[in-house]
Amino acid sequence: MKTYSITFLPDEKTIEAAAGKTILEAAAAAGIAVNSVCSGDGVCGRCRVIVKSGKVTAKPNMFLDRREIQRGMALACQTFIDGDVVIEVPHESRLGGVPQLATEDAIRFGSISDWVGEGALFPRNPLFQKVYIELPKPTIDDSICDQERVFRELRKTRDIPIMQTGLAVLNRLPDILRQSGWKVTVLLGCRGGTVEVVDVEPGDTSAINIGVALDLGTTTVVAHLVDLNTSRTLATKAKYNSQISFGDDVIARIMFSATPERRTQLRDVVVNDINDLITALVVDAKIRLNDVSMVACAGNTTMIHLLCGLNPANIRKDPYVPAACCPPTIRAAEVGIKINSRGLLSVLPSVASYVGGDVVADVLVSGMMRSSELSLLIDLGTNGELVVGNSDWMVCCSASAGPSFEGGGITCGMRATNGAIEHIQLGPNGSITVCNVVGGGKPLGLCGSGLIDAVAELLKTGCIDRRGRFDPAICGSRLRESETGDKEFLLYPGSQTALGRDLVLTEADINNLIHSKGSIYMATECLLDHVGMKFEDLQHVYIAGGFGNYLKIEQGVRIGLLPDLAHSKFKYIGNGSVLGAKMVLLSQEALQYVHEKIAGAMTYLELSSNHKYMNEYSSCLFLPHTDIEKFPSLMGGPDTRPVTGEGA
Amino acid sequence: MKTYSITFLPDEKTIEAAAGKTILEAAAAAGIAVNSVCSGDGVCGRCRVIVKSGKVTAKPNMFLDRREIQRGMALACQTFIDGDVVIEVPHESRLGGVPQLATEDAIRFGSISDWVGEGALFPRNPLFQKVYIELPKPTIDDSICDQERVFRELRKTRDIPIMQTGLAVLNRLPDILRQSGWKVTVLLGCRGGTVEVVDVEPGDTSAINIGVALDLGTTTVVAHLVDLNTSRTLATKAKYNSQISFGDDVIARIMFSATPERRTQLRDVVVNDINDLITALVVDAKIRLNDVSMVACAGNTTMIHLLCGLNPANIRKDPYVPAACCPPTIRAAEVGIKINSRGLLSVLPSVASYVGGDVVADVLVSGMMRSSELSLLIDLGTNGELVVGNSDWMVCCSASAGPSFEGGGITCGMRATNGAIEHIQLGPNGSITVCNVVGGGKPLGLCGSGLIDAVAELLKTGCIDRRGRFDPAICGSRLRESETGDKEFLLYPGSQTALGRDLVLTEADINNLIHSKGSIYMATECLLDHVGMKFEDLQHVYIAGGFGNYLKIEQGVRIGLLPDLAHSKFKYIGNGSVLGAKMVLLSQEALQYVHEKIAGAMTYLELSSNHKYMNEYSSCLFLPHTDIEKFPSLMGGPDTRPVTGEGA
Repeated sequence: MKTYSITFLPDEKTIEAAAGKTILEAAAAAGIAVNSVCSGDGVCGRCRVIVKSGKVTAKPNMFLDRREIQRGMALACQTFIDGDVVIEVPHESRLGGVPQLATEDAIRFGSISDWVGEGALFPRNPLFQKVYIELPKPTIDDSICDQERVFRELRKTRDIPIMQTGLAVLNRLPDILRQSGWKVTVLLGCRGGTVEVVDVEPGDTSAINIGVALDLGTTTVVAHLVDLNTSRTLATKAKYNSQISFGDDVIARIMFSATPERRTQLRDVVVNDINDLITALVVDAKIRLNDVSMVACAGNTTMIHLLCGLNPANIRKDPYVPAACCPPTIRAAEVGIKINSRGLLSVLPSVASYVGGDVVADVLVSGMMRSSELSLLIDLGTNGELVVGNSDWMVCCSASAGPSFEGGGITCGMRATNGAIEHIQLGPNGSITVCNVVGGGKPLGLCGSGLIDAVAELLKTGCIDRRGRFDPAICGSRLRESETGDKEFLLYPGSQTALGRDLVLTEADINNLIHSKGSIYMATECLLDHVGMKFEDLQHVYIAGGFGNYLKIEQGVRIGLLPDLAHSKFKYIGNGSVLGAKMVLLSQEALQYVHEKIAGAMTYLELSSNHKYMNEYSSCLFLPHTDIEKFPSLMGGPDTRPVTGEGA
Repeated sequence: MKTYSITFLPDEKTIEAAAGKTILEAAAAAGIAVNSVCSGDGVCGRCRVIVKSGKVTAKPNMFLDRREIQRGMALACQTFIDGDVVIEVPHESRLGGVPQLATEDAIRFGSISDWVGEGALFPRNPLFQKVYIELPKPTIDDSICDQERVFRELRKTRDIPIMQTGLAVLNRLPDILRQSGWKVTVLLGCRGGTVEVVDVEPGDTSAINIGVALDLGTTTVVAHLVDLNTSRTLATKAKYNSQISFGDDVIARIMFSATPERRTQLRDVVVNDINDLITALVVDAKIRLNDVSMVACAGNTTMIHLLCGLNPANIRKDPYVPAACCPPTIRAAEVGIKINSRGLLSVLPSVASYVGGDVVADVLVSGMMRSSELSLLIDLGTNGELVVGNSDWMVCCSASAGPSFEGGGITCGMRATNGAIEHIQLGPNGSITVCNVVGGGKPLGLCGSGLIDAVAELLKTGCIDRRGRFDPAICGSRLRESETGDKEFLLYPGSQTALGRDLVLTEADINNLIHSKGSIYMATECLLDHVGMKFEDLQHVYIAGGFGNYLKIEQGVRIGLLPDLAHSKFKYIGNGSVLGAKMVLLSQEALQYVHEKIAGAMTYLELSSNHKYMNEYSSCLFLPHTDIEKFPSLMGGPDTRPVTGEGA
């Protein structure tokens, strides 16, 4: 097959690609993360690139105007390589920088020592252990086989009912035992109810035993390097999940993963991300890759399927059945994760197709399953996951929120990375009084928390009504009409933004957000209703999810996303996934607890067949709600005028 | 590297081999089993071949005379390829035909239904099961994952505490379930205390579930094809273990296996044998190879090490420690055994370096561990293994008998294959009155039972004295002097033998046998002495081992191999290995029993450090013994004259 040379600018990265491949595919192969919401279907218009030179063939599309096409602009997913080409990938089409939630500081919900270790909930008893043993030398009177000699010594100090090993270890065992003078370190891995002698090393290597706690998100991958002997976090890293090039959300990824080859492609892409993170972590911590013996991973059900190479197709087909909620512990190398070649990979169990191991980790971190008081947990992302319950029972559900919380489907939306407005405050006439930009500098766009802030502020100032429509009288000159005839509110003129383009919020944007928040609120109401409870019965509301941690409670309540409860009842979980993965990594008891008391104890409620959800959803498509009495703290404010007209 | 073409006659098989390889190595590569006792060290002289044409380089040796060398005769192991050659491998240098103990008839100790099934000792509960299940289709209210749906259904009918599966199965599971209309057959394999979902097949395939019971001997490999649903044996096959080209006994094989490459070579050779047998079995039984899902294998500790690719080096070094007495159950494909690609291989556990899973199987078949009466089990081969005990305790030991019981080290010795004299009877003057030849026709040599017969008869007729020395007065003209000055007794002149060479028995041959039998007898006495028992305390004596089954009790007692007890106390086990392997294959309870009540319950006595054994061994180097009072039934016979002279 004919191949061509493709150079990407400004990276100056050149790769070979086969004729007929799309520029999006070539960029993914070059490791350049190009934005794509629709996984290459040509319907989101996010993957704009500029063809600087060379021959390409492009399908027509509706996102680019004549002037842009004349400038060489093209959609990467709709443009096919037909010769050696040079492509510029502009900043706005990239997944820029490092995700915001990378650091240990983001965990606001206690440190690991509150959870694992002496006096804590779980004993420190890592999933992977290195045990130094000094064996008695065999004699004529004690000539049991090498394997049994090791097992016998291990059983002296620990109660292991089923101990397994493999031929690879047995093959090396005789020489290692004798060359080390019968002083060896046994590497023990916990594998689904049994303990495996994963390896045997000469001498005492037990001092260094490192694990990786992984939060495998649809958007972001976060990895913490953990000393399994001390529970200490040695280093932390985060990066975007490069699968984003194949679709923004899990549904797009599932649709892309229709063939075994594509599933391999998706797996390899995210495993590369994981390997990049781990490689960077061990450099930071000054340890050898070979010393990393275990990865514990929390992620949503689809992400775990894709990591394990399992077919997620049925996750998006009624009745939404995963292949496996608890994939087995495997050798990490089996999926291509590069740690010690005999190291293991364990994943936190899921509950259902849309309530994954990440939510299970959140619940663990919240502690709600240990309190007799009623708690609600909300994990906010493209999907919103909700759990309600106490120490006696837990029920969960999932609601599709759409991409607006992560900046998707919003004219000037973006992820919470450098340049994103994460917090904004407006004056009475809609003028901006406060604006926080991630990383400082000029704003580039609005991330989820910024969007909610903006809409809540517009509502508070009366610039929009409870249906999300602009009031020209109050907006004044900031309100204008876009090229497509949509009404838009000018937040920043191009001269004040990083890209030189106006930063606006349209009525369509606001409508998208209303649908997102309405979906979550309605789901919460249905879940409570299902168990015969009301919002007032809630003693605690835990907010989880990458985006959730940056949400201001007051604004969340104002737009009707969060229930109108005393602010003291709300708590942020932080990155529950990575903390949960860390607990499991450090304590077999935690993993067992997660299986039995959380994942195994949770009842899943499917909302797609829930009549209340279907029938009453439209009542939530107001700010904050059709029924203002559900939000008593907002009553009497400027933004609680009665709703009239269509849809009311 | 330069390669040459090597043609073997009369097979007319041609292969390519590198310059400098020995003819023995080339023959092994061509699948031609050439005799070799010394594993190619040039010291046994068994691998004679005739170079018909082409260039070779040969090391000098002491086995071939000038005339033979002029005829082109060479030792295959000492002759190196130096050009295209044509080699004739004469009949006498081959492992001819099929071993004698191939058929089901050889099992004289009960059929499988006496052991496994309703009313028998063990329930039928095969190590590998195919379970047909009809799953309820998932609904919104019952949307558990595919894996758990299968597990849940299985748990309805069986108590499986730990169920495992792998990504390969999970990967295919969603499609198989849906394409089959939720009617599938689950393949369950027992793996060291856990149950693995080995595979899932669409529809009901449970009717065909086939296993292989394997007796992996140093000399012979026996395979039975077993219907796991009915316990029925569908077909049986046997062949020589092709590792024989690398040494006759386990010690020679261990010495050969010094490098990983050589261990791979030895493994591949015997795995080829196993695959040949299984391929032939499935043709006979008219089933597909893919329907064979499990192999259970009994063999001595060294054979199991070599099968699993484990280093057996320490088995022959004081204090004789195996790498593993219980290698784990693995996928058969891991060692190259060709059955269903996901099928399993389980081995019976060993007790020690020289008491292997074959002896454990013998004990199982004997039933001695279930009787309060004292029993002795003797497994006779190159090594003699002995077990004494009852339902309360068992002690075992091993004694090196040398190769004479298998025809090794005997001038006209051979294995019990076509042409071997298996039974012989002499008249008063040493004339032959009865002679049974395996397969009929002219005799080719003496196998173990024939040798014992011959010596016992010579003793009975007075042709030899109790030191094994010929009495010229009685032997008459049959006694002569060999070319090397040794005294030899002519059994058959060349005109009456298959090879045209005289068939003789020398004093050295008799001396070899005396050392072999003395070793076994002394070991038996030491073992009984160790537990404070005497021969008279024995209620049962079980004779096992390929050779043991053809031994006449009377003759065994006469030469002092077996203790002088009432013949009614002796029983033959038959091929205990294959029957034991079959039991295990058909019953998880039998495997557990073997582990806990036999292998785990047996105490091993190392004779190499036993003073009595060392000090009193020489008293056994007489026929039957220095102390004739130990053999009261023989007292007063013609062969019980007092022993005088050296060594008495």
